Amino acid sequence: MGTQVNRRIVLASRPRGKPGPECYREDREAVPEPADAEVVVRVRWLSIDPTIRGWMERDTYLPAIPVGDVIRSGGAGEVLASRRDDIPIGTRVFGMVGWQDYAVLGADTPVLPIPEGISYEDALSVYGITGLTAYFGLEDIGKPRAGETVVVSGAAGGVGSIAGQIAKLRGCRVVGIAGTDEKCDWVVDELGFDACINYRTEDVDARLGKLCPDGIDVYFDNVGGEILDAALAHINLHARIPLCGAISTYNDTEVASGLRNIRNLISQRGLMQGFIILDYQERFLEAILQLGTWVADGKLVSRVDVVDGLSQAPAGLSRLFDGDNIGKVLVAVDEP
Amino acid sequence: MGTQVNRRIVLASRPRGKPGPECYREDREAVPEPADAEVVVRVRWLSIDPTIRGWMERDTYLPAIPVGDVIRSGGAGEVLASRRDDIPIGTRVFGMVGWQDYAVLGADTPVLPIPEGISYEDALSVYGITGLTAYFGLEDIGKPRAGETVVVSGAAGGVGSIAGQIAKLRGCRVVGIAGTDEKCDWVVDELGFDACINYRTEDVDARLGKLCPDGIDVYFDNVGGEILDAALAHINLHARIPLCGAISTYNDTEVASGLRNIRNLISQRGLMQGFIILDYQERFLEAILQLGTWVADGKLVSRVDVVDGLSQAPAGLSRLFDGDNIGKVLVAVDEP
Repeated sequence: MGTQVNRRIVLASRPRGKPGPECYREDREAVPEPADAEVVVRVRWLSIDPTIRGWMERDTYLPAIPVGDVIRSGGAGEVLASRRDDIPIGTRVFGMVGWQDYAVLGADTPVLPIPEGISYEDALSVYGITGLTAYFGLEDIGKPRAGETVVVSGAAGGVGSIAGQIAKLRGCRVVGIAGTDEKCDWVVDELGFDACINYRTEDVDARLGKLCPDGIDVYFDNVGGEILDAALAHINLHARIPLCGAISTYNDTEVASGLRNIRNLISQRGLMQGFIILDYQERFLEAILQLGTWVADGKLVSRVDVVDGLSQAPAGLSRLFDGDNIGKVLVAVDEP
Repeated sequence: MGTQVNRRIVLASRPRGKPGPECYREDREAVPEPADAEVVVRVRWLSIDPTIRGWMERDTYLPAIPVGDVIRSGGAGEVLASRRDDIPIGTRVFGMVGWQDYAVLGADTPVLPIPEGISYEDALSVYGITGLTAYFGLEDIGKPRAGETVVVSGAAGGVGSIAGQIAKLRGCRVVGIAGTDEKCDWVVDELGFDACINYRTEDVDARLGKLCPDGIDVYFDNVGGEILDAALAHINLHARIPLCGAISTYNDTEVASGLRNIRNLISQRGLMQGFIILDYQERFLEAILQLGTWVADGKLVSRVDVVDGLSQAPAGLSRLFDGDNIGKVLVAVDEP
């Protein structure tokens, strides 16, 4: 393996505002050998998630990526070399591979075999962090009950599209919020949402009032900022707000305007709670079994938004912040 | 009773900004006779609470006070006439008496006898809405554990002073936030808080960093606004924020700046939850027994801030918004 080359996209500088080309540098190194209990994975797919932006900038729930290190990222591929008895060469696995052709996993980072019959794309979307995030945020914090009204922002994104479908499966009225008519059409026509608001062309506050005549019981928030504030203005008694992400604010260098409607949480006895999927590891099996059953029954649709080539990973991340993606953004890693 | 006169302070106009004299009108009417299942109470004390400001302006968790109606308010006094077998004349009771000399209770509104040995002042502070609010907000949402750091804003107010003492009884490090050095001295020297920040003269954010070197586990919020935002900047993993009130914002005609640090709820998996004491009625007995035990053991101090005379009730409400009170504001109703 010493003759092969590992292309890596490393963090060149920390982003201020939207990450630009100055944040990335592509370098090449020899493919590492596995140490004891490690495997080397030939990376085939990368999972592109908004949280990567945070890791590039600062310590959050994980330490910041050190400048000069490969960009941290989930992904999947097949085992090329192994010093673990339980994971033979050729096994398809997923884990935190980083933006590179070859990843060493196993010592500090989990290496999870992908069951037969599950595609890489599904492993990284509906059965990956994306699906699990939607599942636990909605089920554990949102606790939707049949007949309730659930609003989902980032409705056409990886997490939002699944969260909204789960809410439908729970018997709720579901209103999405997304940034293009194409996205809105998709979540209504293909995913079965009851309605969708285009936040770029419509008055979100007024439309929420119209589309949620009985108020909002659960607001699954992927975006933060003004849309969260608009949703807060319409919450019902004992409303639940899972805070999944705040993508509208991640590139802010200063916070423009903050939340103004927090007081509604008091009068409505509302709950707003952040969560991180890492906290739910003990219950991943439960979620994957449930999600898998829904997928097998044709009740849950997962869509991926594929960007071709390792060098396009930064462009893939930009797609999230520009709102260009429909479904989960993945990078199909090419040959070096 | 037809010869007696009932002075009433009624809502003359809805407040915009700070309630001024134009919001109130004093009128006089005949003292009403009790109908079946009702009692007439000679009001001796009024409980002055920030939430009255909200009732004057708009529908919240209770309908707005109709213009022309007596100002809604908790209070206490003795039964003057009764058409209830279980409540004889002379019984000391508390309930929603309103800003007036004589109140009819019993049909739509609860009328609660005050046990022997409990003063009116205690019935309306530590055993009233104030103490119960502190108890349930802290215990049920804050869930403080020994060794944790609890921050309480409005620390010298009725609710905050009790919430902080309960947190001390639970073995926590407690830091108060209040608006004068006199208040800070009181909560530290008399109530046993570990420290107190004067938000008018100190940099709250910097002081929280200094006084909470291990971060904030529970932030009991009575004030909202910038102080809530500063506390959010220091929350620990799995922090809990009971939202009890937002007095700093109640008189705002427009929201100046909103919350900027909500994102910390995500990375720290924090919980922020509003609550209203009315939701806990089934557990009032538990709370009152616990609070009573602490008071009897000398572990819980309750202080009242008395305003003399019914006509001074509006001034009593202003004391809350001006931050002039130490402890629970009560009005001692005078003779008509």
